[in-house]
Amino acid sequence: MRAYDVILKKRNGEKLTKEEIEFMVNGYVTGEIPDYQMAAFLMAVYFRHMDAEERAILTEVMANSGDKIDLSSIPGIKIDKHSTGGVGDKTTLVVGPIVASLGVPVAKMSGRALGHTGGTIDKLESIPGFRTSLSEEEFFENVRKIGIAVVGQTANLVPADKKIYALRDATATVDEVSLIAASIMSKKLAGGADGYVLDVKVGSGAFMKTLEQATELAQAMVGIAKSHGKKAVAVLTNMDVPLGKMVGNSLEVLEAIETLKGNGPEDFTELCLNLSAWMCHLA
Amino acid sequence: MRAYDVILKKRNGEKLTKEEIEFMVNGYVTGEIPDYQMAAFLMAVYFRHMDAEERAILTEVMANSGDKIDLSSIPGIKIDKHSTGGVGDKTTLVVGPIVASLGVPVAKMSGRALGHTGGTIDKLESIPGFRTSLSEEEFFENVRKIGIAVVGQTANLVPADKKIYALRDATATVDEVSLIAASIMSKKLAGGADGYVLDVKVGSGAFMKTLEQATELAQAMVGIAKSHGKKAVAVLTNMDVPLGKMVGNSLEVLEAIETLKGNGPEDFTELCLNLSAWMCHLA
Repeated sequence: MRAYDVILKKRNGEKLTKEEIEFMVNGYVTGEIPDYQMAAFLMAVYFRHMDAEERAILTEVMANSGDKIDLSSIPGIKIDKHSTGGVGDKTTLVVGPIVASLGVPVAKMSGRALGHTGGTIDKLESIPGFRTSLSEEEFFENVRKIGIAVVGQTANLVPADKKIYALRDATATVDEVSLIAASIMSKKLAGGADGYVLDVKVGSGAFMKTLEQATELAQAMVGIAKSHGKKAVAVLTNMDVPLGKMVGNSLEVLEAIETLKGNGPEDFTELCLNLSAWMCHLA
Repeated sequence: MRAYDVILKKRNGEKLTKEEIEFMVNGYVTGEIPDYQMAAFLMAVYFRHMDAEERAILTEVMANSGDKIDLSSIPGIKIDKHSTGGVGDKTTLVVGPIVASLGVPVAKMSGRALGHTGGTIDKLESIPGFRTSLSEEEFFENVRKIGIAVVGQTANLVPADKKIYALRDATATVDEVSLIAASIMSKKLAGGADGYVLDVKVGSGAFMKTLEQATELAQAMVGIAKSHGKKAVAVLTNMDVPLGKMVGNSLEVLEAIETLKGNGPEDFTELCLNLSAWMCHLA
């Protein structure tokens, strides 16, 4: 197989096989396929897209490129929450404790800031002394003991996504639904949960500007989850204005605490209750 | 200016300015723009194309990337012939002497084999002792003394094309009309002639398979020539069957000699007379 032929096939609008997608992704991760061929391939995908089956394969191949977390030793159905990110989105800090208090185990890997939106790990680290880098043993022990643990992603989680994302970022191939969905869902799959509640932000402060784009992404992600035998629900939420009143790592932690005490802003409280309800429903 | 923004602009179907095209081509030649950004750019051009003005600029920028031949010291109107290549195409070997014998100076740089088609230089080198690597002085002296000289391209002729062509060849971005036309015409412009007769091959043995594709390429090349103040005529000729009867470097030289003596195959003789007539007409 040659990378050239796979690029040509996608450029001409044909559907790729599992072997071809594996060949491109694994070859790129090992360095056998150079940056320039992957860049041409990504631009061809931007114009020709991938269908549901190709997306599911791409996601799986990417998820398999590095470490995968096995949560099976934790009893119960583990539900992960993912947000496509937005200004003032400190939802995990509230949803996690609520769901854990209701007996649903929360074993969550979270990311750092992407683009202009803050990451949960950055927010947690604004708490003096808070450690987000736990050994796998400590991580599991926390979930067993207190029902919840949130850690930063391990260095070797989906290396294919790290490498491909960096290239997309330099070649104007970030905003294509198959590539976005595979990037997000490969990390979710590798994270080992049994189901996902996907909070897809839409509006001027989000990556998806229109309801149509957000719906397409939501459907793509739910489709990928289901094709891998996982439960999934997507919720489209407004990001034309910041979520809640506080923006900034430590301010957002304070607002999350106030919200857990029942004193949070209305929009944020409602979103957290909604997402928590969906997570309990799936579990 | 950032390569990212130029890629994005072309990806979104917008027209590029002269500054943007210069930035991409010159940046790529100097190595400031990496292969992967150029590859993404070329794939975006594949899908979005370039208009006549963008093509003319791309050609000029590429032509200016290396040595340019100044033929002005040779009296008369210098007309170059170009063929997009085909099996058995030994036309230069016949057209050159005919035109020269009629008083039109022939100062021609020719290429080597490209893809499955032979190059004029390879054919000439099958003559024992024939030198295709001449100093600029020897080249000019031959044209002045005997009216004709054919040499291989200098190493530094259109380095932008060499580098971009190699990348296109590895990224499935060869067959786009703007890129093909700019690649050919940048070398013609750098070659310094006053006008061009362009023999565009069409058919199963040519790069352009259909009359529609060949017409598009012919129009693109004539358009580029005219926008740089050069005379140009394009002739579409059949490449569903090999040209003449002989294929192979030394056999083709023998067939060319027979044709000059008036004993050539009908199809080849007719094409040579036709192209020679156009060259004399332009001169």
